Amino acid sequence: MYRTHTCGVLRIQDVQTEVTLAGWVQTIRKFGAITFVDLRDRYGITQLLFGEELNHRLEQQPLGREFVVQIRGTVLERSNKNPNIPTGEIEIQVLNYTVLNSSAVPPFTIQDDTDGGDDLRMKYRYLDLRRNMVKHNLELRYAVNRSARNYLHENGFMDIETPFLIKSTPEGARDFVVPSRMNAGQFYALPQSPQTFKQLLMVSGYDRYYQIVKCFRDEDLRADRQPEFTQIDCEMSFVEQEDILRMFEGLIRRIFKDVKAIDYTDPVEKISWENAMWRYGNDKPDIRFGMPVVNYKFPPHVFPAKQGALSHGLPGGFKVFEEAETVVAISVPRCSDYSRKQTDELTEWVKRPQIGMSGLAFIKCNPDGTFKSSFDKFYSETQLKDLATAAEAKAGDLILILAGREERTRKAISELRLEMGKRLGLRKEYEFKLLWVVDFPLFEYDPGENRWIARHHPFTSPKPSDISIMINNSPVIDHPEKYLEHPYANIKANAYDMVLNGNEIGGGSIRIFQRGLQEKMFAALGMSREEALHKFGFLLGAFEYGAPPHGGIAFGFDRLCAILGGSESIRDFIAFPKNNSGRDVMLDAPATIDDQQLEELHIRINLPG
Amino acid sequence: MYRTHTCGVLRIQDVQTEVTLAGWVQTIRKFGAITFVDLRDRYGITQLLFGEELNHRLEQQPLGREFVVQIRGTVLERSNKNPNIPTGEIEIQVLNYTVLNSSAVPPFTIQDDTDGGDDLRMKYRYLDLRRNMVKHNLELRYAVNRSARNYLHENGFMDIETPFLIKSTPEGARDFVVPSRMNAGQFYALPQSPQTFKQLLMVSGYDRYYQIVKCFRDEDLRADRQPEFTQIDCEMSFVEQEDILRMFEGLIRRIFKDVKAIDYTDPVEKISWENAMWRYGNDKPDIRFGMPVVNYKFPPHVFPAKQGALSHGLPGGFKVFEEAETVVAISVPRCSDYSRKQTDELTEWVKRPQIGMSGLAFIKCNPDGTFKSSFDKFYSETQLKDLATAAEAKAGDLILILAGREERTRKAISELRLEMGKRLGLRKEYEFKLLWVVDFPLFEYDPGENRWIARHHPFTSPKPSDISIMINNSPVIDHPEKYLEHPYANIKANAYDMVLNGNEIGGGSIRIFQRGLQEKMFAALGMSREEALHKFGFLLGAFEYGAPPHGGIAFGFDRLCAILGGSESIRDFIAFPKNNSGRDVMLDAPATIDDQQLEELHIRINLPG
Repeated sequence: MYRTHTCGVLRIQDVQTEVTLAGWVQTIRKFGAITFVDLRDRYGITQLLFGEELNHRLEQQPLGREFVVQIRGTVLERSNKNPNIPTGEIEIQVLNYTVLNSSAVPPFTIQDDTDGGDDLRMKYRYLDLRRNMVKHNLELRYAVNRSARNYLHENGFMDIETPFLIKSTPEGARDFVVPSRMNAGQFYALPQSPQTFKQLLMVSGYDRYYQIVKCFRDEDLRADRQPEFTQIDCEMSFVEQEDILRMFEGLIRRIFKDVKAIDYTDPVEKISWENAMWRYGNDKPDIRFGMPVVNYKFPPHVFPAKQGALSHGLPGGFKVFEEAETVVAISVPRCSDYSRKQTDELTEWVKRPQIGMSGLAFIKCNPDGTFKSSFDKFYSETQLKDLATAAEAKAGDLILILAGREERTRKAISELRLEMGKRLGLRKEYEFKLLWVVDFPLFEYDPGENRWIARHHPFTSPKPSDISIMINNSPVIDHPEKYLEHPYANIKANAYDMVLNGNEIGGGSIRIFQRGLQEKMFAALGMSREEALHKFGFLLGAFEYGAPPHGGIAFGFDRLCAILGGSESIRDFIAFPKNNSGRDVMLDAPATIDDQQLEELHIRINLPG
Repeated sequence: MYRTHTCGVLRIQDVQTEVTLAGWVQTIRKFGAITFVDLRDRYGITQLLFGEELNHRLEQQPLGREFVVQIRGTVLERSNKNPNIPTGEIEIQVLNYTVLNSSAVPPFTIQDDTDGGDDLRMKYRYLDLRRNMVKHNLELRYAVNRSARNYLHENGFMDIETPFLIKSTPEGARDFVVPSRMNAGQFYALPQSPQTFKQLLMVSGYDRYYQIVKCFRDEDLRADRQPEFTQIDCEMSFVEQEDILRMFEGLIRRIFKDVKAIDYTDPVEKISWENAMWRYGNDKPDIRFGMPVVNYKFPPHVFPAKQGALSHGLPGGFKVFEEAETVVAISVPRCSDYSRKQTDELTEWVKRPQIGMSGLAFIKCNPDGTFKSSFDKFYSETQLKDLATAAEAKAGDLILILAGREERTRKAISELRLEMGKRLGLRKEYEFKLLWVVDFPLFEYDPGENRWIARHHPFTSPKPSDISIMINNSPVIDHPEKYLEHPYANIKANAYDMVLNGNEIGGGSIRIFQRGLQEKMFAALGMSREEALHKFGFLLGAFEYGAPPHGGIAFGFDRLCAILGGSESIRDFIAFPKNNSGRDVMLDAPATIDDQQLEELHIRINLPG
């Protein structure tokens, strides 16, 4: 051992002990004949005092930032105590020191407020990893890992490793593939998830499985995606949806407790996918704050209680509203005093290409009970009042209204709601709100191919009451323009997403476990019998030998850690992340390989002309 | 929930409780008007009793082997108790049952002594996994996983995930590669181990790292190798060899304790690589039994104490011995009464191609003090006695002697020793003996390329005392025939292997942490400066910014589990293993992929002509 203690443990009661420490030079401060050095390691920082004698030697054999040194010395009480660090009451009178390794001057400062840009820090990731902020992120990640494993272990789950070299069965996303040298012309695929394997384990009777496991997707990388990512992957047998929800609420509660010391005792709300879409405009609502979306042209079966104020529908006269497919609003609390400049700025905000609206209407619900809107010439005060009542606005609120095509407008009001929540400080980094979104549609319609695609994945079971609809109807869509009237359009899935602060952190489903229903599902997705057998024959086979009812869930581990760490970026929580082109700039990978390697793998490069 | 209890928990004190169970039908036994069914799940087996009424229903809706059923019933005390299973005192009087899923007749019996052959069981791995034996193996594997994680956590190690899509830097073994779609003509590689990443983490100050992680090697598969395998991978900073040995002896002791309830309190012996080769003929000796190898033509510096008996060297007169480069022997206890048939059979055994010797000589040390050998006409009784003394043989022992070329003969005597240990029952499956093998040579000589190759890997440090030999000498070998006299031939590595019952279960080293020495190492291995920078520039760069002294170890997790489970085969301890051609016969992977996939990846198939 190069040390008797770490740089984080010495305290006032250790005074007079002779110790050996080893670590990195954080700072050097020379005061005349003496020099103070802050020595850093994973565990903390300890102040070293080099007296007159050693100071002489320091001139011959100088230290520098990030040098690795070993020192022997005596623990002293500091005259000038530092209450901000745990070792702040002591310092080490250095008796001897050895430079274990020197360091060039780092290309950026190893500090929280580093001067290094993103690219530089990624290239020198091994130095970036020294920064406290990054270290805390990886420590948090490990704490989440540990907490999840403990909870799952205590609940009878077994970690069972599934293979990485599997078969390519691309469905939604593209597979990464691996050419096989021993099987010329053939390829393995890297798993997008261990989905089929965990289901096989249930067929094998393993009952409760988990894995914290790398998964791979060869997708064009959006801002915060990685080609390799980590899942907490779980599956259980003999369960129904409620059992899964209860078990995995428990998991997240435990992680809150272990990692953030938060007792999350609130019941976790459940919302149907349809309600989420109506009330928040998206399927992963942030419920840390209210501001629900009101649809002024709502179909009668939604929000019946609120119909009163607008029982005769949205008043006519304002062409923009009249002609719009959808008119939606949110009521922003205590913002009726927004200036013209402020409402103009909001209008510009919704007109940005990312949002894509053509304008913004608003109603100021003045504190004195009067109303002032951006469309006063079309609506009477009474009519404005009705709109305010329907939006449950209070005196002092500002109602923001968007009108346009259904899908874009819904998305826009959702973004606007989040933006206003942020501006009003309602999305607090250290407040956490869980939500289950349930009752997803089983299928989505693909207009390009005029067929159904699986909203979750092809192994998700319909709601038990909808199984007969699926079995007894043909998936063929004879009238594309009326696809919404096809019986399949209304089949609900036995699927659930867990949402935390507006992010989907996990999702899963009760699975199909009957061969016949699984075959029907593959057929519904336009897969021929041959294709289904070629790709998933092993699973269909397994369902013939006593497959139990089962279901599961997978959590996006990187994302979960980022949210718990109060960050937007998963990259900060991955030790060696890749950039948006899927490159590791530190390694300079991917890279070309030798001709001999290509030859052995029976492949040739085929560069785009 | 489909059940109130599992099939393993009900006991006599639960009598009269109404319960709901779910599981698989293991056996059905009809006795007149009643039927007994054994219901199985992961947790155990519970006997069900179908009375007269239900028996009628069973005729309409019959059960079969491996059907999945849910039953409601009342716990009764059994009249005919089964003391062999924990639930053997009770049975369930079935009130109602539901078939959750039926099962075709399995292609082999789900029993310990199954009638299914290897290939069939691999194809239907999901059924094979139902067998108790396989289940116990995977449970043991999880227990080892859990135990290792707990120990490492308690000792301050952090699980930090390293990337799977890295850069190809093939050294010893071939890399699996992954074509990059987004970077045309370039490839990722799958890691053969996280070696360089864990070293970077030490440079980053993480101090104690671990991971239980998949690694990949594209090798021609020998009997018990897998293209993907799992390592317990660890690294520590500011340590010397002794610190690592102590820490990881502790890990294995903890695993023995947690998994096998064995208190392994013996100190773990250490043997130098050179002594292991002399005394056991190989570098991973099984020390559960003695029978050390004696070398009758030993160089004078080895075993000086035993020189007495043969102080004038091996007696002349027997051409086979005279002309052999090496003459080695083991003394097999209490086997002097071997018949001619038995010694002939042993002679055949060593002449098999796998062993490849041309014959076997022996000396019977008779209980009456006389000697009888297979070469009596050349050696006097006194001379035989000298040989016996040198081999430390006792009256009643049988000395087996092999003569031939050094390397083959050494390997043969090692195999013969293990075979005799096995035949005499000295290699007990449930006895465990750990051993550290240390002081490996740093380099091996490659006669093909007339250069040095790294025995462990290029990151292993020489012994501190040998660093100057490496720095101050050129690696170039001017006289290939005298390579043993090159200063590099005697450089010892700061490396260590942990051996359990004759199997290497782990290996590691203290690493090079100085850029200059690492560059010298790459040069010694025949790598040009450019090549070293291209492949390992990131590591050399990292060593410039304050790299601490560090070292580590990696355990072969699959192998460790197999040995703890008393098995020779790692495949039995992997949920979804591949066969010797690297195929998953259940998935039928690897497989061909679509032309469109190939196109997108910028590659073409190039089948061997």
